[in-house]
Amino acid sequence: MADKAKKLGTDAYKGVRDFFPEEMAVEKSIFDIWRTTSEKFGYEEYNASVLEPAELYKAKSGEEIVNEQTYTFTDRGDREVTLRPEMTPTAARMVAARKRELTFPLRWYSIPNLFRYEQPQRGRVREHWQLNVDIFGVDSINAEIEVINVAYDITRAYGLKDNAFEIRLNNRKVMNYVTGEVFGMDEVMAQKVAKIIDKKDKMKPDAFEIGIREIFGISAIMDNAQREALEKQADKLLTLLNSKNFEEFVSRLPQTKEEHVGLKEIREVIKGLERLGITNVRFDQTLMRGFDYYTGIVFEVYDMNPINRRSVFGGGRYDDLLALFGNDKVTAVGFGAGDVIARDLMETYGTLPANRPPAEIAICIVGEQNAPYALDVAQSLRVKGTKVAVDLTSKKLGDQISNADKRGISKVIVIGDEETKTGKLKCKQLKTGEVTDIDNAS
Amino acid sequence: MADKAKKLGTDAYKGVRDFFPEEMAVEKSIFDIWRTTSEKFGYEEYNASVLEPAELYKAKSGEEIVNEQTYTFTDRGDREVTLRPEMTPTAARMVAARKRELTFPLRWYSIPNLFRYEQPQRGRVREHWQLNVDIFGVDSINAEIEVINVAYDITRAYGLKDNAFEIRLNNRKVMNYVTGEVFGMDEVMAQKVAKIIDKKDKMKPDAFEIGIREIFGISAIMDNAQREALEKQADKLLTLLNSKNFEEFVSRLPQTKEEHVGLKEIREVIKGLERLGITNVRFDQTLMRGFDYYTGIVFEVYDMNPINRRSVFGGGRYDDLLALFGNDKVTAVGFGAGDVIARDLMETYGTLPANRPPAEIAICIVGEQNAPYALDVAQSLRVKGTKVAVDLTSKKLGDQISNADKRGISKVIVIGDEETKTGKLKCKQLKTGEVTDIDNAS
Repeated sequence: MADKAKKLGTDAYKGVRDFFPEEMAVEKSIFDIWRTTSEKFGYEEYNASVLEPAELYKAKSGEEIVNEQTYTFTDRGDREVTLRPEMTPTAARMVAARKRELTFPLRWYSIPNLFRYEQPQRGRVREHWQLNVDIFGVDSINAEIEVINVAYDITRAYGLKDNAFEIRLNNRKVMNYVTGEVFGMDEVMAQKVAKIIDKKDKMKPDAFEIGIREIFGISAIMDNAQREALEKQADKLLTLLNSKNFEEFVSRLPQTKEEHVGLKEIREVIKGLERLGITNVRFDQTLMRGFDYYTGIVFEVYDMNPINRRSVFGGGRYDDLLALFGNDKVTAVGFGAGDVIARDLMETYGTLPANRPPAEIAICIVGEQNAPYALDVAQSLRVKGTKVAVDLTSKKLGDQISNADKRGISKVIVIGDEETKTGKLKCKQLKTGEVTDIDNAS
Repeated sequence: MADKAKKLGTDAYKGVRDFFPEEMAVEKSIFDIWRTTSEKFGYEEYNASVLEPAELYKAKSGEEIVNEQTYTFTDRGDREVTLRPEMTPTAARMVAARKRELTFPLRWYSIPNLFRYEQPQRGRVREHWQLNVDIFGVDSINAEIEVINVAYDITRAYGLKDNAFEIRLNNRKVMNYVTGEVFGMDEVMAQKVAKIIDKKDKMKPDAFEIGIREIFGISAIMDNAQREALEKQADKLLTLLNSKNFEEFVSRLPQTKEEHVGLKEIREVIKGLERLGITNVRFDQTLMRGFDYYTGIVFEVYDMNPINRRSVFGGGRYDDLLALFGNDKVTAVGFGAGDVIARDLMETYGTLPANRPPAEIAICIVGEQNAPYALDVAQSLRVKGTKVAVDLTSKKLGDQISNADKRGISKVIVIGDEETKTGKLKCKQLKTGEVTDIDNAS
C-alpha cells in the first residue's frame, strides 16, 4: 500500500491553517471569550453551511468581487456556489426566511469560518474564523450602544486596557449629508470621495489632497474663476475632513436650526457609552468601513499600540439589507471580529491561557497483563468525572511518568501486579510527591 | 436599494442545513457530549480547513470517487482542491507533517463538517458534522478497547441503554485469512467477496447467495464435476458467513495448532470490553466497513430499535495510512460519529436538552428616557456574571414581559422614572411572582 515513489504531501492547502491541539487550544480560548461575552448580553448562537448560492453575494457586491475575491465554483447540478466570504448576508438570508415566525428583536451571534481568495501574508489568510454579533429589529440608537458595548467587552477580554485602544465612530448619514447636501455632489462623485477617504490612512497627506482635487475636476487648463471656485470647495472639504474632533467638525458645517439627525445620533452614542463607563470613544469623520450596505452609525475598535496602530474589528448599522429578499424593512446593527488579530493581541498582552493538560490523572502500567485492570480503574475514575489518560505504550515506568509530566498531567497512578491483586492504589502528585490512597477493590 | 423585481432567494444551498438558534442548541448539546466524553479519556481537540488538496483523497480512494462523490474544483492558482469528505486523511496528513516533534501516543479528536456530493434525502445531507476520535501509536489491542469504550460511552450519553444497541466486531485480518488462505482467492476475487458482504444487509438472502455463486464463477454450461467442486466451495463460504456466533464461525474454519492472530484479537477485545462492563458486543463476520484503509479490528455501533435497525457509527484500525506520506509506520485506531443520526437518536430517547433561555434576567424599560440607566443596570449585572437581555423595543410593558416569558426568561426587572431616580430595583420571578430587592444606586 505504501507507494513511497509517489508519496503524498503533508502541507495544508495554500493559505489555510492546520490547528494542532496546542493551536486549537488558542482558538478555543478565543471562541470562549466570544461566546461568553455575547451570551452575557442575551445573544443566541446560530450557524449555516460554508456553502452559499453565489447570487447571495452578487446583489450587493457586484459580479466583480464575487469572481475575483471569492471561491466560487459550479456544482454538478449547474448551481453556482460560493464559500462564504462574510456572514452578514447569510444572517440576513436566514432572518428573511423566517421573518414571520421569529420574535423580534433578535440577538444573534455566530462563529463561522470565512474564505477570501487573496495572496496569503501575515494576518491575511484565505480562511479565517470570525465572531459575528447582530441585533435585528431595534430602530433606536440603543442597539448601537449595546453592540459597541459587546465589542468593548470583547476587546477588554483580549487584555487591552482602555488606553490601549479607541472606539472610532462615524455615521453614513453624516457622510451622505456632507457629500449630497453640503457639497451637492451626485452619487458618482460621492462614491469617489467615500472611496478615497476609506484609503486615507494608507496614503501620504499630499496624495490624498491631490486625489480630492482631482475628484473636484480641478485642472491646469481651466480658467481662473472656475478653478478658484472649485479649489475653494475642495479646500472646504479637506478642512472639514481634517477636523480634530467632533465639535470642530460640526462647527465647520452649515449652521441650521436643528442639528442633522446623523450628528445627533453620534452625540447620543458617545453619551450612552460614557454612561456605561466607556470613554475611549472618538468621532472619526474619515472612518468609512468597507461594506456598502451600512446605512447609519459605523464603528471600529482601533489598536493604539504605537508600533502597530491598526483597526482591530468593526461594524455598523445596515437597515436595508433584508429588503433584498423582498421583505419589509428589518433594521440591523452588527459587527465581526476575526481570530487572527485576536490571537495576535492576546499574545501581545499575555492573555492566552496556559496550555491545559489533556488529563488530570495518568495511569501507568507495569506489565502488559495489568492493562485490563488499568482500563477498568480509569473507567471508574471517569464515571466520577475525572479526566484520565491510560499509558498504553508498554514503555518503562520511568518513561511513562516523564511522558505524563511532559504533557502537564499532574497526578499518576501506577498499576502493577500488586495493585491488580489488591485494588489498593496510590495516586501521586508529580510536583510535590504527595501520595493519596485510593481503594478500587470491587 | 431594494430591487424587489429581482429579489434574492432565502433558501440555503441544496442539501445543507441552516442552524437557527433552536437547531444550533441541539447541535451544541451533541457537540458537548462528544467533547466531554472524548476529553474524559484524555483526547485533545484539533482542526483543519475544510479545503484540502484533492490529491489527499486520490491516493486511497481512486480518481473515480474523488470526481463523483466529492466537491472538487480548481482554484485560480490551478490547484485542485476538495471540500473534505472525511477527516481521517486530514488527521493522517497532520500527524505525518509533525511526526518528529509529536510525542506518541497521540489521542486526538475533532468535530469537522464534511461534504459529500449525493442526492439529499432523509438522514443523507451534503454537509454533516462528525466527531472523529483517533489514537495514534498504540500497537496493542488496548487501543481498540479504549476507542470502543469511548464509542460506547457516547452511545450511552445519547440515551441508549445496553439492550437498545449492539457493538459489532470483525477483523480485516480474519477476512483476509478466510479469502486468501482458507479459500485461496486472488485479490480481485477477495475484493468482490468483500464488496458483496458489505451489501449483504441490504440484499435479499437469495440475491446474496446468487451473487456469491457468481463470484465463484459457477455457470449452467460448465461440466458437472467442475460445477460441483465450485458449489462446494461457495456453500462452504455461505455456511461460514451464516455462522450464528463467534464460536460457530471458528469451528467452521480449518483447525490449526495455534489460533489465527485475527481471531485472538477478537477474543481479546470482547474480553477486555466485558471486563469494563460492556457486554453488548457481538462478533459479526459480515461487518466490513466501507473504507479500504482498515487493517485490523473494525467495529460499529448498531441500533437494535426494531422499527429502525441501522448502523449508528463505526471505525477500526488503520495501521498503514501514514505510510502514504512516506513516513515510517504509525499505527492508528479511530472512529467517526455523525450529527444527523445523533440528533435522531436523542429525539427518539428524549435526551435532547430543554431549550435554554437566552438570558437569566430581562430588563424592561418604561419610557425611552430610562434606556441609558437600564443599559447601565444590565452591564453591572453582567459584570457579576449574570446573563441579561435588555428589551429595546419601546413596546408596552405588558408586551415586554410576555415577550420575556415567551423566550423562557424567568426573571424581569422593570425600569421606569422612579427606578432611574432612586436606583432601587425589584427583580420579579415570572412564575412565582416572588420579588427580590436590588440596590443599584451608584
